[in-house]
Amino acid sequence: MEILKVSSKSAPNSVAGAVAGVIREEGSVELQAVGAGAANQAIKAIAIARGYLAPSGIDIVCIPAFASVVIGDEERTAIKLIVEPR
Amino acid sequence: MEILKVSSKSAPNSVAGAVAGVIREEGSVELQAVGAGAANQAIKAIAIARGYLAPSGIDIVCIPAFASVVIGDEERTAIKLIVEPR
Repeated sequence: MEILKVSSKSAPNSVAGAVAGVIREEGSVELQAVGAGAANQAIKAIAIARGYLAPSGIDIVCIPAFASVVIGDEERTAIKLIVEPR
Repeated sequence: MEILKVSSKSAPNSVAGAVAGVIREEGSVELQAVGAGAANQAIKAIAIARGYLAPSGIDIVCIPAFASVVIGDEERTAIKLIVEPR
């Protein structure tokens, strides 16, 4: 599954466009966010992507889970949001 | 649908317990969060609640959307996360 990394500086509209594109092509996508700001942008992106996909009859939902990622030398907990059609 | 308001100071484990309880009793629940910290806690709570409900064969997903809420005299944009079994 393709992984899109989202940061607190990511523009939700751009991420939403990427989510919609990957969903159309591959059927599902994973967003990965480290930190509250990043998780917030990821959630907004999914809400916006729902609007991009709804006219095509694609109703996406998200499944939140935890993941460990290594940033530099540090292990951090990331939130992963698996996005799939219902 | 019952609405659980989540703040940046909410403990994800406690919110997860509440989510699991309402899902078992009513089938679905809405989490409402204003601000990045609150949205982050809400997402964590859903990830944890998945673990509480999975042993009963309940596989929950979330549907993010925007909502307008009035706090004091100000209108703020909240994130609402509708949580339902798949």
